Amino acid sequence: MKRVCVIGSGSWGTAICVPLADNGSEVVLWGRDPEKLSDIEKNRENRRYLPGVKLPDAVRCEAELKAALDGADMIVFAIPAQHFGGVFETVAAAAPELLKSVPVVNLAKGIEQKSLKRLSERALEILPETRYVVLSGPSHAEEVGRRHATTVTVASHDLKAARLAQDMLMTDYFRIYTNEDVTGVELGGALKNVMALGVGISDGLGCGDNAKAALMTRGLTEMIRLGMKLGADPNTFSGLSGMGDLIVTCCSQHSRNHRCGEMIGRGMEPGEAEKQVGMVVEGMYTAMAAKKLAEQNGVEMPITEAICAILEGKLSPQDTMQLLMTRAKKRENEDILKRL
Amino acid sequence: MKRVCVIGSGSWGTAICVPLADNGSEVVLWGRDPEKLSDIEKNRENRRYLPGVKLPDAVRCEAELKAALDGADMIVFAIPAQHFGGVFETVAAAAPELLKSVPVVNLAKGIEQKSLKRLSERALEILPETRYVVLSGPSHAEEVGRRHATTVTVASHDLKAARLAQDMLMTDYFRIYTNEDVTGVELGGALKNVMALGVGISDGLGCGDNAKAALMTRGLTEMIRLGMKLGADPNTFSGLSGMGDLIVTCCSQHSRNHRCGEMIGRGMEPGEAEKQVGMVVEGMYTAMAAKKLAEQNGVEMPITEAICAILEGKLSPQDTMQLLMTRAKKRENEDILKRL
Repeated sequence: MKRVCVIGSGSWGTAICVPLADNGSEVVLWGRDPEKLSDIEKNRENRRYLPGVKLPDAVRCEAELKAALDGADMIVFAIPAQHFGGVFETVAAAAPELLKSVPVVNLAKGIEQKSLKRLSERALEILPETRYVVLSGPSHAEEVGRRHATTVTVASHDLKAARLAQDMLMTDYFRIYTNEDVTGVELGGALKNVMALGVGISDGLGCGDNAKAALMTRGLTEMIRLGMKLGADPNTFSGLSGMGDLIVTCCSQHSRNHRCGEMIGRGMEPGEAEKQVGMVVEGMYTAMAAKKLAEQNGVEMPITEAICAILEGKLSPQDTMQLLMTRAKKRENEDILKRL
Repeated sequence: MKRVCVIGSGSWGTAICVPLADNGSEVVLWGRDPEKLSDIEKNRENRRYLPGVKLPDAVRCEAELKAALDGADMIVFAIPAQHFGGVFETVAAAAPELLKSVPVVNLAKGIEQKSLKRLSERALEILPETRYVVLSGPSHAEEVGRRHATTVTVASHDLKAARLAQDMLMTDYFRIYTNEDVTGVELGGALKNVMALGVGISDGLGCGDNAKAALMTRGLTEMIRLGMKLGADPNTFSGLSGMGDLIVTCCSQHSRNHRCGEMIGRGMEPGEAEKQVGMVVEGMYTAMAAKKLAEQNGVEMPITEAICAILEGKLSPQDTMQLLMTRAKKRENEDILKRL
């Protein structure tokens, strides 16, 4: 029987245990807080972050990191993006040989604020031989935990590692595609939160469905533009980790980013809106990081820039919409055409 | 002052008069029914198909076709897809020289059932020198008529014609991009109705947001697959006429295709569901046409095939979902990768 160690006992870390166990593996769930972990173990449920989902029998909790990693055939990281680097360092120090020999699947989505680095870059600078795989796509943890049909992508430069991850994750409700474009898959997951914020602002302003669809589409275009500059394949962005995740984040009322944007669109001051949401609104930070990356790389990202201007209080949502609609006349896919 | 003739006085034909007039043109609206036309003229409103939208002063109705076409600097067709060929023939016979000299912009979306032809193919076989332009993208007529922010694409092999159309249509709420990929833009508009039907079925089955986003994304992938075989640029499908229109059709409750699919997903017999909708559900016919085109061209379209099997009563929605989720393990963008 295969064994998988899941690092991080939040909603996504807890949810991923379900398909892993259903696939036939023994699953060991590790978290930083032994007390919360024993609570999950005792109740067979993560009452705080994934209430209502009973853990399969093949899942057990383990608070001691080395013991959790022992004998793992795959390691899954489910740590918030801004904390990923630190936790990865700890795990790499505890079991460096393991990370070089089994697939290391990262579920986190984001760009590290202080370094402007993607999470694969962070992992590989800590341990260059890591068999790094990123998993991304439209996947609300609440639905995966409840075995609702879900389809995602696993990407790796190490196609064998991606295929192993596909084998150990795929079930009849959790469909996995492989991909080799790590950069594209990572950027899709990180930047969609920025666009969800923008779509929320548009909805809050009372703009219609046409505007919402256009914002998402032109938002994807500038995600592609930055992605191409950073070495991603433009086709990745029309896949599950690009368009798919963008749709689920922009169209679902569950998204914190969308909800925060909606309040800003209705006139609330951005800092106050974040306070109202009551949790970190990742898109607000990724927007600033993306803007810096765009500037560093000479890439035009008018929607991202407009969102940053609103967040910094430099422009009102109304004026911003007007500016976006009255830009110069353009051809679609101008940048892709230039490349050809 | 420029003059534009709009052929077709349904909701879309009526709505497009608003940005045309706001752009500074005189607009002549022609329809087949003189009585309905004089009703629109008298009320300055299309009470049947676009209630609540007052027509600008620069719009006038004209029931006599030759008089309507006289002196036009652009012709806009807003006729249902299945009737486009016939009406185009009539107009081409009335003013063949005009259609060779001014941009002819088609707003219709669909594949002609009996011939399996795209509408540009139909127009160009009738009059090969037509300066044909297709307009497509996320554009509910109700929102365009109310001057809500909307962004669309105009595509033509004749880039000058596309640019003229862009100049005469663009306003501060109606943003126009140009594109040269007529086939890709046409197929996006036609096939999105099939996917909206599929997403409706998934919603009716009670599947979640993850499944919906995955269906739309993998649906787009098979639209790209057929498109590439028919000579379209795959990048067009991540633009406004592909992804953009797909989002607006799948996520809006206004879509007849989505509504019809939802009833089928809840167990209603397809013919009965269409009757309940009370109007033609275009996606049901385009699904069959797309399936035939896919077979003729040796293209795999599992979602389209599955929808056809449900429509023909060969498979239940439940079994179909299961079959789609348990197909062989795949790489994302397999076909695009093969082409490279």
